[in-house]
Amino acid sequence: MNKKTKVNASILIIGNEILSGRTQDTNTSTIAIWLNSLGVNVGEVRVIPDVEKMIVDNLNLLRSTYDYVFTTGGIGPTHDDITAKSVSKAFGIKYEVHKEAFKILETYYQPGEFNDGRQKMAWMPENANLILNPTSGAPGFNVENVFSLPGVPSILKSMLGGLTNSIVGGEPIKSLTISLRTVESEIAESLTKVQNKNKDIEIGSYPFFHAGKLGVSIVIRSENQNKIEKCKLQILEFVNKKKIDLIDR
Amino acid sequence: MNKKTKVNASILIIGNEILSGRTQDTNTSTIAIWLNSLGVNVGEVRVIPDVEKMIVDNLNLLRSTYDYVFTTGGIGPTHDDITAKSVSKAFGIKYEVHKEAFKILETYYQPGEFNDGRQKMAWMPENANLILNPTSGAPGFNVENVFSLPGVPSILKSMLGGLTNSIVGGEPIKSLTISLRTVESEIAESLTKVQNKNKDIEIGSYPFFHAGKLGVSIVIRSENQNKIEKCKLQILEFVNKKKIDLIDR
Repeated sequence: MNKKTKVNASILIIGNEILSGRTQDTNTSTIAIWLNSLGVNVGEVRVIPDVEKMIVDNLNLLRSTYDYVFTTGGIGPTHDDITAKSVSKAFGIKYEVHKEAFKILETYYQPGEFNDGRQKMAWMPENANLILNPTSGAPGFNVENVFSLPGVPSILKSMLGGLTNSIVGGEPIKSLTISLRTVESEIAESLTKVQNKNKDIEIGSYPFFHAGKLGVSIVIRSENQNKIEKCKLQILEFVNKKKIDLIDR
Repeated sequence: MNKKTKVNASILIIGNEILSGRTQDTNTSTIAIWLNSLGVNVGEVRVIPDVEKMIVDNLNLLRSTYDYVFTTGGIGPTHDDITAKSVSKAFGIKYEVHKEAFKILETYYQPGEFNDGRQKMAWMPENANLILNPTSGAPGFNVENVFSLPGVPSILKSMLGGLTNSIVGGEPIKSLTISLRTVESEIAESLTKVQNKNKDIEIGSYPFFHAGKLGVSIVIRSENQNKIEKCKLQILEFVNKKKIDLIDR
């Protein structure tokens, strides 16, 4: 299969608990790091409430814009879990009991414990591909380029490994970080010059405050390791000239 | 001034470092909790890269949809800080040196240290209102219903207090959490019944895994404390009947 150079994904975080500030999202970072390792770039993330129209509209926009869409949250047994129904609606396909998912769940629970709430987790878009869940039984699902995962971070993490073969990435995106004992405004001009000389490289500058001291991390990202190295040398040149200390971080 | 019952905001997180997974966003939670305390609900969050067109398009959509928009990131001195220029473009107003911001920065830095990179931080949309920065000098800015803040969490936090009087919220949103030693599928059906009896209340169910044990937090949110209490009693009724333990959390 020919590799596309750039493969882009978006993440749709579904859940009022993130919007209320009660829960801090960590799934974006987990999914992004995993996708980067497969050569997939995350182009956009949206966090939306458990509201069917919002899910349907955002999903339809994102799935036509990006190569892949990952949704997190809203696939559990309670009344506020409406992702499976909404994904079905977005694709215009039936929302029904998925036989394979039903079997998995039936086997997972003790006899007599497979109640209505648990059975709800077998309702999915018709003919969805299952995403197996080694942690807590209930599978996620995949329709075309949309992958629906749970919101609980430890469960989500445990499911990504099984998905790796379903994702066709481009060239892996490599990155290199140079951390400096300085402030951004000391290096802004020199860094701009390096960026202008390397227009196809992404150079980010991120101030930090750690252990009582200020610093800046410069992050160089590209599919091309040689270009990263060339860029690094140009940065180290002005860093040495300005007598700025490097930090291990 | 008459209070609107519902006041909605959105947050636009600008920064490649969040999309790459390198940095975990914590500003959403900080801003959301602060806004909730002022009676403002966060309806949507978007994370986008440092790309002018993305910033302009998203900003124009969000500022016409929500009462308030908060942007974070991209207002520093380096080449990848393009928020001020993009906000100017979105509003169709001039991007120019803001005299008051220039004075603040000139005073903040030692004589001779107010270099080009630092002066860049005084470039803003014409006639923007400044958002003062008690931590590191460089102010944020406000145009109409859009408030632009820095991305560094500790600096952002220090600037919110000064903004409180600029935000007109609705009725404060109250919330109550009941944490239970159970799993969601044990209570899903009973909880659905409570939700159906209290359609104007937001009831969320959030499984957690903490200190080796599973649990579920039920979060009840409303502007009306009496309705929250009524809902709580209905939940405790089925919790007692099912002999589920409550957890302090």
